Amino acid sequence: MGNFCVELKKVVDDSYEIETGFELENKLIEDLQNGLVGNIKKFAVITDSIVKDLYATRILGLLNDAGFKADMFVFEAGEKSKVRKTKEEIEDAMLLKGFRRDCCIIAVGGGVVTDLAGFIAGTYGRGVPFINYATTLLAAADASVGGKTAVDTPLATNLIGLFNQPEKVYIDIATWKTLPERQIYSGMSETIKHACLASSEFFNYLEQHMEQILGIEKDACVRIAEENCKIKYNVVMKDEKESGLREVLNLGHTVGRAIETVSDYRLLHGEAVAIGLVAEVHLSHKLGYMTEEEMNRVVALIEKAKLPVSIPDYINREDLVKKLYTDKKVRDGKLRFVVQKGIGNVVEFEPGVFATFVSEEQAREIIGEI
Amino acid sequence: MGNFCVELKKVVDDSYEIETGFELENKLIEDLQNGLVGNIKKFAVITDSIVKDLYATRILGLLNDAGFKADMFVFEAGEKSKVRKTKEEIEDAMLLKGFRRDCCIIAVGGGVVTDLAGFIAGTYGRGVPFINYATTLLAAADASVGGKTAVDTPLATNLIGLFNQPEKVYIDIATWKTLPERQIYSGMSETIKHACLASSEFFNYLEQHMEQILGIEKDACVRIAEENCKIKYNVVMKDEKESGLREVLNLGHTVGRAIETVSDYRLLHGEAVAIGLVAEVHLSHKLGYMTEEEMNRVVALIEKAKLPVSIPDYINREDLVKKLYTDKKVRDGKLRFVVQKGIGNVVEFEPGVFATFVSEEQAREIIGEI
Repeated sequence: MGNFCVELKKVVDDSYEIETGFELENKLIEDLQNGLVGNIKKFAVITDSIVKDLYATRILGLLNDAGFKADMFVFEAGEKSKVRKTKEEIEDAMLLKGFRRDCCIIAVGGGVVTDLAGFIAGTYGRGVPFINYATTLLAAADASVGGKTAVDTPLATNLIGLFNQPEKVYIDIATWKTLPERQIYSGMSETIKHACLASSEFFNYLEQHMEQILGIEKDACVRIAEENCKIKYNVVMKDEKESGLREVLNLGHTVGRAIETVSDYRLLHGEAVAIGLVAEVHLSHKLGYMTEEEMNRVVALIEKAKLPVSIPDYINREDLVKKLYTDKKVRDGKLRFVVQKGIGNVVEFEPGVFATFVSEEQAREIIGEI
Repeated sequence: MGNFCVELKKVVDDSYEIETGFELENKLIEDLQNGLVGNIKKFAVITDSIVKDLYATRILGLLNDAGFKADMFVFEAGEKSKVRKTKEEIEDAMLLKGFRRDCCIIAVGGGVVTDLAGFIAGTYGRGVPFINYATTLLAAADASVGGKTAVDTPLATNLIGLFNQPEKVYIDIATWKTLPERQIYSGMSETIKHACLASSEFFNYLEQHMEQILGIEKDACVRIAEENCKIKYNVVMKDEKESGLREVLNLGHTVGRAIETVSDYRLLHGEAVAIGLVAEVHLSHKLGYMTEEEMNRVVALIEKAKLPVSIPDYINREDLVKKLYTDKKVRDGKLRFVVQKGIGNVVEFEPGVFATFVSEEQAREIIGEI
């Protein structure tokens, strides 16, 4: 009978700044005093049980000293906490403390914290602003650009969530010094992935400076934090909603994510991705897109970062093959992989298509090799 | 050390069409075949236990007949289902059925269904498209324009959710005939609210045509469906994120939502809002913004729609006063009300400010009067 058009075309500006440096806690407070999030005076600091004592309590204290109303919400550290139940518990705790829509969330921690807190911010009061204070290399590499937030469910990782851009990201390199060594190494896999897919020059740099990086030397760390942001930004900018190009960031993740789940999170995300990268350079070599020498360089760099390059014995290979089918790139029930091309590039199979179908047999073969 | 700006400025077009008519099921299928949601071939029909047999099963059948892959996800009818647990169960059921990011959600039902399904769509795979097939007057009046989706929690109604615009809204007036009478009356309260705050002409129309409307006569129903959309649209367009003007849509809801909760949902949303409107015209009269005659006209119109105009005896008045403080308009711990001005207008207290502080004593007084 009647048609009515709801016109909702508008310009949206989600731009934000990433600040990289040493001990940025006071800078954060200063920015808030200077109106980073407007007139908001109430802050919910979300963190995990490890980062709480290391940094979050200090930030909470600084917020209170500055006259803001601030509370801290802590969950058990680890990927297993990145679930709907934790989101719910934090929401209820915030409601109980009287937080309404006039608040801002500050995520202090690694990738799990920023993913979870960003998701909470996106649905609390239908969206409140949030700030990421990244305390791990992985968060710096992975969570600072892209706006992806999510939780895991028993049936899928990262499938429930939303795109949500922070007001600002702080990458505090000083915090990396307090990371357990295994976390530092783990964080390097996303960095290596970025070099593999986008920059042979950065790959060379990593080959030459791995010791300085793992020793958390200032210049080397600033360089990798910035390169990570730049590479990811260039990809994400061109494809914010992950329709085509953005799939390249999935390099190493097809096998990586599956191993992470099958290991029941005994492997850290970065360790699993490292193994995934090894699997995928084998695939690339097999498909003729990488020489054996190039393949070996990638494996050597991963080893140099003290990351695993083969599948642990406790992983059931058949479970792993089955798990591959839960990957989000799967289409019409068939596996799809991003394929590296030499060092610093990926294969574009058709214009805008950066993943190719791979048979289960091929997948089983490369998994058998490593 | 280094600052990096992530530039994310862009034009977003969330425009969509609202189609009002009789028996629009085939039109929906036709629109999908003509690319309403692009190439998507998988549909999740979300509905409640009442609407399932009335319409959703039929729509599911038409989808399957048209060659689409479609499944239906049903939850127990009622406001009590609008919670995170139901969201979680539907998500898990969709995952189990193999729904990934290449699907579209079709909400078939009233306000609870459209609120819940719109929220699920917003976070499933970080956002999939959704369509609203509204089968109640309330959904037509309330949920078709505005993009508000949410669930309730024990501590707050509608506080966890997001703004999410549908691809299209169908208002099928034929479905109103199958509504229980109480639901039809309940649906009128949002319509009366719209007339109260925006149009004395529409208010006159309602006074003169209430019988035809409650008898679901075609012309009268189309008129109210369209007026509801127009009034709400004019408000929402000017203030999509509910910073100021949009609060006018909260007329009658300060007391209404509180009564709804304190009644433990024995009162339907619309019934509670009707009582809330009565409370708030009393407030308006007391503050000098409405004559006694205008106040009585509003109360009479509500009665004509067979809606309650006084607080049921089983409601504890003190519990109700306490509950008012959980309202989202509360600021600095103080109650705030939208105030009607004559018929068809609201008070703008300062430029852009449409709610005013009201003391607990004043609130208790008007609650005592009705």
